[in-house]
Formats: sequence, C-alpha cells, structure tokens
Amino acid sequence: MERTPSAVRIREVGPRDGFQNEPETISTEAKVELIGALARTGLRRLEVTSFVRADVIPQLADAAEVLARIDIPDEVAVSVLIPNARGLELALQQRERIDEINVFMSASETHNRRNVNRSIAESLSDLEGVLGRAREAGLRCEGVISTSFGCPYEGHVPTARVLEIAARLRDAGAQEIGFGDTTGMANPRQVSEFFGAARDALGADLELTAHFHNTRGQGLANVLAALEAGVESFESSFGELGGCPVPAGATGNIATEDLVSMLHEMGVQTGIDLAALLACAHRAQAILGRPLGSHTLVAGPVDWAQSR
Amino acid sequence: MERTPSAVRIREVGPRDGFQNEPETISTEAKVELIGALARTGLRRLEVTSFVRADVIPQLADAAEVLARIDIPDEVAVSVLIPNARGLELALQQRERIDEINVFMSASETHNRRNVNRSIAESLSDLEGVLGRAREAGLRCEGVISTSFGCPYEGHVPTARVLEIAARLRDAGAQEIGFGDTTGMANPRQVSEFFGAARDALGADLELTAHFHNTRGQGLANVLAALEAGVESFESSFGELGGCPVPAGATGNIATEDLVSMLHEMGVQTGIDLAALLACAHRAQAILGRPLGSHTLVAGPVDWAQSR
Repeated sequence: MERTPSAVRIREVGPRDGFQNEPETISTEAKVELIGALARTGLRRLEVTSFVRADVIPQLADAAEVLARIDIPDEVAVSVLIPNARGLELALQQRERIDEINVFMSASETHNRRNVNRSIAESLSDLEGVLGRAREAGLRCEGVISTSFGCPYEGHVPTARVLEIAARLRDAGAQEIGFGDTTGMANPRQVSEFFGAARDALGADLELTAHFHNTRGQGLANVLAALEAGVESFESSFGELGGCPVPAGATGNIATEDLVSMLHEMGVQTGIDLAALLACAHRAQAILGRPLGSHTLVAGPVDWAQSR
Repeated sequence: MERTPSAVRIREVGPRDGFQNEPETISTEAKVELIGALARTGLRRLEVTSFVRADVIPQLADAAEVLARIDIPDEVAVSVLIPNARGLELALQQRERIDEINVFMSASETHNRRNVNRSIAESLSDLEGVLGRAREAGLRCEGVISTSFGCPYEGHVPTARVLEIAARLRDAGAQEIGFGDTTGMANPRQVSEFFGAARDALGADLELTAHFHNTRGQGLANVLAALEAGVESFESSFGELGGCPVPAGATGNIATEDLVSMLHEMGVQTGIDLAALLACAHRAQAILGRPLGSHTLVAGPVDWAQSR
C-alpha cells in the first residue's frame, strides 16, 4: 500500500448519470434539493446535468432550469455533460453557472455507434471542436472514454487504442480524462497495468480519473488497484444510482458512500462528510420510493458499528 | 501485483454458513443435491454442515443424515463445523465421511459471550480439547477466529490479541487458521498489515485463510489486499448465502462466484469451473424461491459479456 495517495478527488455523477437512468422522471424541485444537499457534503466536484436532446433523454429535459436554480457553494466545481456542439451552446447560455464540462465517446467502435450513432473518427472530430470552443469560453474540460476496460459487444479493447483517443482529447483541450468501465468488465490486474501505461503515455500533467462500475462486484477492488497505481481522481454515484445496467438488473456505478467509506477507513482523505452523504442517499430513497443498492446505506459505516 | 499468488485454494462454506441462516429450513434432499453439485465444480474444499444442537440451529438438525447421504468425489476435502466436544463425538460416528473439522471462537470477549456464551479463556480451553481429540482421530483441523478485523460491540480488536489466540489454536493442533471479518469491518490497508503481521507471528507452516464479508461492499477489495499480502486460501459462499447479516438486510459472505470471477480475470487459478458454480447458485435460487445477491449471478461472467 506504499504508493496509495493520502488524499483523492471525487466527482459525484449521480445527478446526471443516476437521474437520467431512473424509470420515473424526478421533479426539478427534488433534483435542486438533492444537488444542493450534495454540494454541502464536502464534495468539491459535482456533475449536475446534461444538455442532451429531450426526446432522447427526457429525464434531463429540465437541464437549463436545474442549472439556473441550484444553490452551490463557491468551492464546488459544477460540471455538465455535453454530447455535441448544440449541447455546448445551450450550456454556454448559462456560462457563469458552470465550471467544467465533460464530453464523452467510446473506445469501442461498436459501442460508440450504438451509443451516439457515430464512428470513433466522427466523434473525435466533433469533440475536438467542442473542446476548443469550451476552452475559449474558459471552461475546464474532461473527456470521458467509455468501455476503456472492455466492451460488451467487442470484448477486449486494446489499451493502446484507449490511450490514443485520450491523447487526441488531451491535445484538443481536455485537462482531465475519465476512463469508464461502462459495463463492469475491468479486473484489478488490468486496472493496475492500464493506469501504469496511461501515466507513461499521457504525461504527468493530465489528470487521470477512474470511473468504475460494480457490475461483477469488483468495483472497490478496482479502486484499490487504481489507488496503488497512483490514481488520485475518481467518479462515483451516491446511492449506487445509474450507470448502464447491462444486463437488466445488474449494478452500475460504484456508490459514492461505499467508496468514501473504504477510503476513510484506509486513511485516505476525501474531504467528504460521510454522514451527510448518507443523508443525501436516504433522501434520494425517499424521493424515488425504493431502496437503493449501496452497501453502506444498508449497513451503516464502520464507525457506527463500533459505537453500537 | 507482483506478490499475487498464481493459484489459490477456496473453501465453499455455503452448505453450512449459508443454509443455517436461511429463514426456511431447506430439505435434506435439496441439501444433498446442492452439495453434490458443488463437489463437482472443481472445488477442493467443502464445508457441508455442523454438528450443533438442533434446538439452537434447527436448519442443520439433519447434519448426520446429510453427511451420510452426500456423494463426494475423493479429491474433495469434506469439512464440518464443530462447536464443542459433544459435536465432535457426533461427527466421529461418521469419521470416514469427514476429512477436516473446523472449530470457531471470537477474538472479542463480548462477541464470544453473545455467540457461544463462554469467555475467550473458556472457549480456548474447550477447543484445545476438541482439537487434540480430532487430531488423534486423524482429522485435519482449522480454527476460525471471528471478529478478527473488528467487533460490532467492542469496535477495534487488537491484531496482537487475534494472533495470540491463533497461536494457541495452532499449538493445540490446528493446521489452518481462518480469520473472519464477521460483520464486514475490515478495510484493505488493515488486511494488508494484518496478514503481514500474522505471517511473521505464526510461521510459514501454518495455513492462513481469509474469510471476508461484503457488508460494506469492500469484500473483494479485501481479497485483493490479502492476495497482495501473499494469502493463498479463502473462504466464501455460493450465491452470497449466509454470513451474520448485521444489521438486518446487510450483505454477509462474499459470493464464491464473484471471488472466482475476479481471480480468473486476474489470471489467478482456482481449479473451479465458473459456469458449473453459477449453475449451483441458479439451482439454489430455484430451491429457495428468491433471487440471490451475487453480482456475477445477475450480470454473468465477463467472458459471457464478451461473447454477446
């Protein structure tokens, strides 16, 4: 554990990745409440919505209103997911409400076509334009690469291919690259080798972010492998909301409270108040009217166990 | 990942630890069927039942009949859990059916009293007698120490205390010590330090086995930390059955299929046929009439994802 960092950064993606996957649309009022509460847990990075077409993702049709109404402390970086140039123009109408954008594409040709109906080459070309325009507007940019650790359609995804795309996005203006394990196919050995190769290939200045899913129960084991490979930035979703549940019923994103619980027990700082974060997940359960899947939400954190 | 072993041993504990925690008693017929199927997955160690008092654990009241009826290939080591001298005498009536016994106690005074109504000193004294008698009968012996990584009543459990108990059980005849994270309080850093200290304190000849729970989602991360600390022996439960769910609703034992899935993806051999193991968990779901919690059971293994 010698190489494990003493502190990490966590971006909460539940208000975008989680809410967009809910079968029932969540009211704007409830979104504004939950985002405001999350912003007061000590989280410093919060992805709040996405400017996507309302006919494609109706759950996020209120993106502009959510962005206008949320009450966020200055120290929290607000990010929005941007699918294309049109999305960026919509976001820029509230430029002063946004600190970061993230753009996304897949490292697998088949997955990219199924997800955004474009080839990888077309996506890269489009996103280079979006990143350039966003940087001109003074926005910090993250590029997220889906299926970085495997594709449910193509199987193995060569690391060299992923890193080639990452380098293109970096050169176009991305200051951070998120590597997504979109359907939970990564294993710890692969993660360890991947981030070693990524750091070597992409240089020390680019922020490398790990975005794991818990589809096969290995989410936190992959976090541990990434930590030991020197990764200091993670994305996760409170309440274990959202995240490409393929096949149906499978777990998606790792839960932020499970991630924070493990990190704190290991002595790795996050700046997050776990009790406040759990209160957000409890509130989300009440709003959604169903139990959420995170382990720490059910069992309580270890320090509560110790005080029983 | 340099220190990760190339192969590990797994003991399946579901037929004892899982079945005893089921609210509805499983028929002897179904137990015999499931144990027979598990014994044909490539598993080499199988804990099949426990000789406990039927008024305490009615779910295992058919221990003698299960042991008499199961059909197990020669290469599979059959173990039974033995709570006391009376249990050992019952087991010895079918001596030829058994390869190993395991005895158990807690490293926490409070937990031991609540679990077996004895002090740690009394448990140690009793178990020393049981281990001596079992070794005379030619049985291989494992001592399992509950709450090795924390106690829900006492909180922190000093590693030195756990290792002192382990040394006593070793000196009394145990060839293997299982360290149980009974209510899922271990974290990877602690696991890493614990097994380093255990190897130093207990010598190279004693087999050290890790028994993790997934109560707070860290089960497989703890497995990874143990692997990296050189641990080569694990216990787990198919279908994520059983394992002290405190509080109610919390996950217990790590699922054998999730463990095997991660190990195989990492290139660590187990000798187990994952598809055959998943078939056992599917059959258990049908028998129990409810969905079981293992991730791989829901999502399917990665190689299936790759072939879709």
